[in-house]
Amino acid sequence: MAEVRAVAERAKTASRRLATADRATKDAALHAMADALVAAGPRIVEANAADLDRGRSNGMSQGLLDRLALSQERIEVIADALRELAALPDPVGEVVRGQTLPNGLRLRQLRVPMGVVGMIYEARPNVTVDAAGLALKSGNAVILRGGSAAASSNQVIVQVLAEALEERGLPGRLVQSIDAWGRPGAVALMHARGLVDVLVPRGGADLIQTVVREATVPVIETGVGNVHVFVDESADLDQALPILLNAKTQRVGVCNAAETLLVHREVADEFLPIALASLADAGVTVHGDEETLALAPEEAAVVPATDDDWAREYLSLDLAVRVVSGLDEAIEHIRRWSSGHTEAILTRDLRASERFVAEVDSAAVMVNASTRFTDGGQLGLGAEIGISTQKLHARGPMGLAELTTTKWVVHGDGHVRP
Amino acid sequence: MAEVRAVAERAKTASRRLATADRATKDAALHAMADALVAAGPRIVEANAADLDRGRSNGMSQGLLDRLALSQERIEVIADALRELAALPDPVGEVVRGQTLPNGLRLRQLRVPMGVVGMIYEARPNVTVDAAGLALKSGNAVILRGGSAAASSNQVIVQVLAEALEERGLPGRLVQSIDAWGRPGAVALMHARGLVDVLVPRGGADLIQTVVREATVPVIETGVGNVHVFVDESADLDQALPILLNAKTQRVGVCNAAETLLVHREVADEFLPIALASLADAGVTVHGDEETLALAPEEAAVVPATDDDWAREYLSLDLAVRVVSGLDEAIEHIRRWSSGHTEAILTRDLRASERFVAEVDSAAVMVNASTRFTDGGQLGLGAEIGISTQKLHARGPMGLAELTTTKWVVHGDGHVRP
Repeated sequence: MAEVRAVAERAKTASRRLATADRATKDAALHAMADALVAAGPRIVEANAADLDRGRSNGMSQGLLDRLALSQERIEVIADALRELAALPDPVGEVVRGQTLPNGLRLRQLRVPMGVVGMIYEARPNVTVDAAGLALKSGNAVILRGGSAAASSNQVIVQVLAEALEERGLPGRLVQSIDAWGRPGAVALMHARGLVDVLVPRGGADLIQTVVREATVPVIETGVGNVHVFVDESADLDQALPILLNAKTQRVGVCNAAETLLVHREVADEFLPIALASLADAGVTVHGDEETLALAPEEAAVVPATDDDWAREYLSLDLAVRVVSGLDEAIEHIRRWSSGHTEAILTRDLRASERFVAEVDSAAVMVNASTRFTDGGQLGLGAEIGISTQKLHARGPMGLAELTTTKWVVHGDGHVRP
Repeated sequence: MAEVRAVAERAKTASRRLATADRATKDAALHAMADALVAAGPRIVEANAADLDRGRSNGMSQGLLDRLALSQERIEVIADALRELAALPDPVGEVVRGQTLPNGLRLRQLRVPMGVVGMIYEARPNVTVDAAGLALKSGNAVILRGGSAAASSNQVIVQVLAEALEERGLPGRLVQSIDAWGRPGAVALMHARGLVDVLVPRGGADLIQTVVREATVPVIETGVGNVHVFVDESADLDQALPILLNAKTQRVGVCNAAETLLVHREVADEFLPIALASLADAGVTVHGDEETLALAPEEAAVVPATDDDWAREYLSLDLAVRVVSGLDEAIEHIRRWSSGHTEAILTRDLRASERFVAEVDSAAVMVNASTRFTDGGQLGLGAEIGISTQKLHARGPMGLAELTTTKWVVHGDGHVRP
């Protein structure tokens, strides 16, 4: 699609201007973007109302409507996130490695922007602003495909951001939307080899799998989290219960929420009746194996688990629960079913924690802490553009550094290779 | 193809054993592999003779036959490379980042093996050994597809390496070949999602493009180098000539050899007649623009350049030469035609060097040094598995660290997210 290629070419050209911009210029632009969003609040809320109306008549769920909805207060929170980005250090220019070689060649490996970042996501207008801010701070142009449900909101937001950039002397084309070209536009973005340096899909498993299969540009897979909590025989059970409840219920519908609980058989009798009662109080439906069902108190909401339950990312008040014979079976279960996002062990046994950390092959491994901490903000990376579940380039929360690449700079004085 | 998936599954299982092996175990295995190769030298040379016979009757060029040929001496050099790998630090376990958060959570981002590395390459049996050694040292299993021309040599080599691993108590299936399943086997490897963590193609542009298009597993693109040398108006011309000759002729047929020379118009009159004469002495055919042709001395081998010449990676004693109006036109030419591998500026002007370094978007940028230094060994990384020309994960020479990923390890004491 020629229009989307033209968008990508303009992004590439604009990215060159930004690549050599200093931090002060970028931070001033982030503040200008934040101010402009707040000033344009009423206009954004009006456009958002049109999206919400369309959503309601299309039968959109209350949960999705809530994610889509913007108010002046929410816009101010979103704008504050841009100001927080301005306060973070600039990843560009960091010397990752450097040395002088025996022959006198001086080497530096520098962090530099990728160039053009593509983002395909679903109806959450705050992601439009987050992605634009992260891309700008890391020196990249961004091309946004936000999905039709938020099209009116996103159109106004992108316009406001582009105008703010122009006012600060930067190209407005650093932030462009391709929503106008629908699905064919999204496909064209996935095929824009040589123009799009990395494409980040963010949303449900279907969206992510479509992008991974279809794209010929480099992609970073994000976010599917079939997350496990293992309660070891030596776990401090007074700690284990609050951690489990936090991991499952502090926020459902997010990728770092727990989806499966594994309990060591030695403590199942003691832990599960209390845990299942507390989960029931919190409104959680348990999908349990036979041993779990046998230990469930009367008030617990328990249904039998199938293999499908071990594989599922519920994103709801559901939890699969299985009793295991020990650490080996827990690790084996995780190897078979995990999506490689986050797993936690609750234990007081040093060797068990060390084996779990070494042998579980996931982006994040927690010891005696909630899985909900796998989050760029919580781990001190600042904002995040997504949580990578792949091993190439970025693994776990992706912050500013993950939106950069490196460049070798070599200074000599007439050096030739012998 | 079920056989290749079974190979990949065995590799995955074997990789788990290796992931937690300590450096001493891995280094001892590397030495055992080196010793076994030398001991099996006569058997390898015999198998290699069969490959060479087949190559000759298929009309293989002398250059390719030379790359394919093994002798006891060459095998000893290849074995020494394994011993040098043993002497390098272990990338696994390195703490990349770490801190204690205000809430007391202790974070470490650790370097861990990828798991299973796939390698698709062409008739060079030394790559079989290099790839196996690099994978082992970085804690990964490797699946090798070496191409039919070297099939007999590779079969014996892989067998010898696997036996050496078994003798040291490691799974022989850490090093497996899929040559027996031909092209369909290679395609199956490209599609082994969830089993192959990264696939590295190494060879000609056609091979690499096929893998990039076809693969659904993560791929790192390597090696195509349309490399530029820019002689600025302030260049030290006494340095410029040896650097140019080194970059073009020290070894042709490699990706970091120069393919295009750009000369600032202000020094073209002085530099080009001498440079073209020296290039002619070195047997180089120049493909020049009009200004270059006009400045060529009688003895120079000069033909007119077309756009095709600006785009080509000759990998031969050919060089495209163009006179440019200055730094801007040089950078613009490089933006349009470079493959993003390596470019060099020869200059005494600090601002010109800084602009060139900042604005040229390539994996390596040289100032007053030969482009031939873009090489893992030369840049002090130890061995390399290829030179990445993409921006994701690895850019430039890929050593041991580039064959690893990271894992967040978080220790708490009952921490939950507020």
